[in-house]
Amino acid sequence: MEGLMMNFPLTLQPILRRARDIYPKNEIVTRLADGGVHRYTYGEFYQRVLRLMDALRRAGVKPGDRVATFAWNRYQHMELYYAIPCLGAVLHTLNIRLSTEQLVYTINHAEDRFIFVDDVLTDQLLAVQDECPQVERFVVIAEQGAAADCGLRAQEDYEAFLAGGEPVEDFPDLDENAACAMCYTSGTTGNPKGALYSHRSLYLHSMCVTMADTMALSQYDIVLPIVPMFHVNCWGIPFAAVMTGATIVYPGQNPQAADLVGLIQNEKVTLSAGVPTIWNMVGQYVDQHGGDLSSLQRVVCGGSAVPRALMQKYEDDYGVTIIQLWGMTELSPLGTVSRIKRHMREWPRERQYEYRLKQGIPVPGVEVRIEDEAGALQPWDGEHMGELVVRGAWVIRDYYRMEGGASAFKADGWFGTGDVARMDGEGYMQITDRVKDLIKSGGEWISSVDMENLLMAHPDVVEAAVVARPDAKWDERPVAFVVPADGRADALTADSVREWLGSEFAQWQLPYADDVHTIDAIPKTSVGKMDKKVLRRRFD
Amino acid sequence: MEGLMMNFPLTLQPILRRARDIYPKNEIVTRLADGGVHRYTYGEFYQRVLRLMDALRRAGVKPGDRVATFAWNRYQHMELYYAIPCLGAVLHTLNIRLSTEQLVYTINHAEDRFIFVDDVLTDQLLAVQDECPQVERFVVIAEQGAAADCGLRAQEDYEAFLAGGEPVEDFPDLDENAACAMCYTSGTTGNPKGALYSHRSLYLHSMCVTMADTMALSQYDIVLPIVPMFHVNCWGIPFAAVMTGATIVYPGQNPQAADLVGLIQNEKVTLSAGVPTIWNMVGQYVDQHGGDLSSLQRVVCGGSAVPRALMQKYEDDYGVTIIQLWGMTELSPLGTVSRIKRHMREWPRERQYEYRLKQGIPVPGVEVRIEDEAGALQPWDGEHMGELVVRGAWVIRDYYRMEGGASAFKADGWFGTGDVARMDGEGYMQITDRVKDLIKSGGEWISSVDMENLLMAHPDVVEAAVVARPDAKWDERPVAFVVPADGRADALTADSVREWLGSEFAQWQLPYADDVHTIDAIPKTSVGKMDKKVLRRRFD
Repeated sequence: MEGLMMNFPLTLQPILRRARDIYPKNEIVTRLADGGVHRYTYGEFYQRVLRLMDALRRAGVKPGDRVATFAWNRYQHMELYYAIPCLGAVLHTLNIRLSTEQLVYTINHAEDRFIFVDDVLTDQLLAVQDECPQVERFVVIAEQGAAADCGLRAQEDYEAFLAGGEPVEDFPDLDENAACAMCYTSGTTGNPKGALYSHRSLYLHSMCVTMADTMALSQYDIVLPIVPMFHVNCWGIPFAAVMTGATIVYPGQNPQAADLVGLIQNEKVTLSAGVPTIWNMVGQYVDQHGGDLSSLQRVVCGGSAVPRALMQKYEDDYGVTIIQLWGMTELSPLGTVSRIKRHMREWPRERQYEYRLKQGIPVPGVEVRIEDEAGALQPWDGEHMGELVVRGAWVIRDYYRMEGGASAFKADGWFGTGDVARMDGEGYMQITDRVKDLIKSGGEWISSVDMENLLMAHPDVVEAAVVARPDAKWDERPVAFVVPADGRADALTADSVREWLGSEFAQWQLPYADDVHTIDAIPKTSVGKMDKKVLRRRFD
Repeated sequence: MEGLMMNFPLTLQPILRRARDIYPKNEIVTRLADGGVHRYTYGEFYQRVLRLMDALRRAGVKPGDRVATFAWNRYQHMELYYAIPCLGAVLHTLNIRLSTEQLVYTINHAEDRFIFVDDVLTDQLLAVQDECPQVERFVVIAEQGAAADCGLRAQEDYEAFLAGGEPVEDFPDLDENAACAMCYTSGTTGNPKGALYSHRSLYLHSMCVTMADTMALSQYDIVLPIVPMFHVNCWGIPFAAVMTGATIVYPGQNPQAADLVGLIQNEKVTLSAGVPTIWNMVGQYVDQHGGDLSSLQRVVCGGSAVPRALMQKYEDDYGVTIIQLWGMTELSPLGTVSRIKRHMREWPRERQYEYRLKQGIPVPGVEVRIEDEAGALQPWDGEHMGELVVRGAWVIRDYYRMEGGASAFKADGWFGTGDVARMDGEGYMQITDRVKDLIKSGGEWISSVDMENLLMAHPDVVEAAVVARPDAKWDERPVAFVVPADGRADALTADSVREWLGSEFAQWQLPYADDVHTIDAIPKTSVGKMDKKVLRRRFD
């Protein structure tokens, strides 16, 4: 039929133009290592993005080329977040916490032509540059001044590179389905797997992040993204903040709790985003050294389950609402948000927590299912567990150039997440386990995550992990690792742990007394998740 | 490049599925003429939509067919809002306020196959059915019970029609660019012009409506759309409310101020949407008869400029924030939203009003320009006027089957709105006139809208309109029509009006004393806008 709508491709270009037109005076602030901050406006940011686009163009970057970053959260990284995709090239955010082996694999698999690297991170690239011969140039970003020569191939200073471009408004026409950005998942087994995002998917994801029912990221916010920019598009905040006109505060290199508290109070941050571990650290810091979090209205928190004690502490002590999110690299990342529903607002807090401590409601644009091992749909009754299967407007179709192996992407267009979850009657999703972490004992399932959550609610426990060990009689048995709170190691006996777990678990599900271990810290992966592989090696 | 994203078409289908899955217990409430309400849940709504889809399918409705509605805001109309497009057919919402001549033109131009009509509105269709031979069937919606036979061709009762379908989940695969809905603009001259919307554009528009910085329509809202469902998709609320899980309260047939106040207080409405005239009526009603508006947090208001007195009254008397919107049929309709920016929050109210009384900031997804008569871009300085030109993700590309004539759709992909506007340095747009309503006197422009706004700020004036009359010496001169407040007709002399205008207008711009007229009411078009054509006829 004739008529219908204008062609208005959903790319990062209109997001960037809106910042230029509507919010040119808004600020982007970056913490510097010397205790100061760098601040400039969206208007200045825009001019530098233009310059960077032109410099990239002159350096021979073509549409579809992969250009990598290896950097902390700072304004220069944000310039790359826009300049590379708006030119039609692909922003590849390398994870600075990958092992050398994974880093080499990732750079070579993506075929990165250039790498933009922070001066404080060049050692990691020096160690791998000889194994990545296709990288033509390393551009080094100094926090202030020019970067010193450090021995990287065809090294160039970021500011000098930028000065080679002119601030011309020369935006190529882009298809909204063109590649925009990529990141690799840091699996605990096998090689990292690449997720390649389109402009369209990141545009739609940005719209979703600004919805009143999700993060509600708004022009009224001063947002501090603590989640790294090398971690799934920094949860979409660098795109959504510009779309909506929020002020952004970047924590700079290797921020510690004291730095984050300082930024929150000095910049009057209203919204922040990070994993639970960070918020634990920030809380401990404030309790020991003081600090004013009163500007902070809400924190979005994901990456691992938010402990009840953390949510409660932030509410009671600081008046800050923690909103739990769940996402995955394959989902750009936003999948669910855990806000209470309207009819729950008058409920007592404990009852609200039953829902808020779940991973949340699928956001508009993402759909979920629970499937059993045979692929049969499971009811949404809060009881039936199965694999969490998703589809949506910002879910990848497959991994980037994935060679062989069984695919998690199903023929019917859905993606099997590898998470075990339940959906309840209100539509809240709760991850109960990774498929590979479920403990099968005597033919029955024990959820390691449920057991971990209960352990972490113990007043003497700081952290906990539960894994399966092989067992001749029962196939598998649960093994609990607990990190005691300061000065509470003696009180935390195997019997007391078993007694605590007995309040919610059946007797047969409890770990044997010999299977309760006290340790100093739970091993973590490069993105801060529990590394159960390391714990399991004890039984190999 | 391989990889990239899943195919997830942006259609009304996932919006509908989300209501089924996440908010099945949420309510849709409709006011009945007998003083009661009809209420049912999203879950029941979903089942009836399935049934209606099946009934339409069995009646031979094919993808692309136009199926019209001629109805008030009520749950049956909302069922049609979803069932017709989810089947791939096109929802054509006929404006019940069109003249007989325009109605015939519109039905025939759209080639409507079926018309669903409220029983209280059948007379208007009886008058035109013989001139619309291609309409195969009229389905009559009774408020309660079955519709009586009224003499329409192939008449059928809505409930009987619905009962002919089964509630089967048989959703066809739809392209997101497929036609979804259409409406016609009700110009004051010439034939109505059709805007044909795609699924994608209405999906994106729905996301926009739920953004924190626009309407912020949320699952926490109980929304009362007073704007008619036959008026530009009811400003997108029936789609956005379902996407986000808001409760909807429909005002039913021909609602009066008393009915609206009753709904707001009984249903605890939090958000409502309507033109300024409605809110004037509601305010007058509350002042005279009482009424509790305390649940209402905000009102979105557009269609014509929001008078300062109205905004102030709602804030002072009821604690309700009026948020001004601007849109057009060609924009689905949302174009701008007038909220203050972050740095304006500490300003005195009068200074905030300077911005809030403008039409607002372009929403993400819509871009604007100001062009002079030669097409040159005008600066955003709050001074330069020109035609408002727009483009965006939910702007139509052209009118539906428009025959001949100059097009407002430019070769460069932008749409000339026919509005004269200014953009200020903060990015707020202000409509100063329609291109055809500007007054050109002695080679200079006088904005009729600016003059009307100042007149309406006069304490003795309820409403005002300014038009041009031909003048031998000056080409054109302004003529002011004012509606005096109760009992103030005597005080409102031509001299006092001229003196009032002299505070902001130059002496040569003031209407002559003979050109100031006191009248009982400003004539209105079918959608409640001032009908300047009628006033101008006085000078023909």
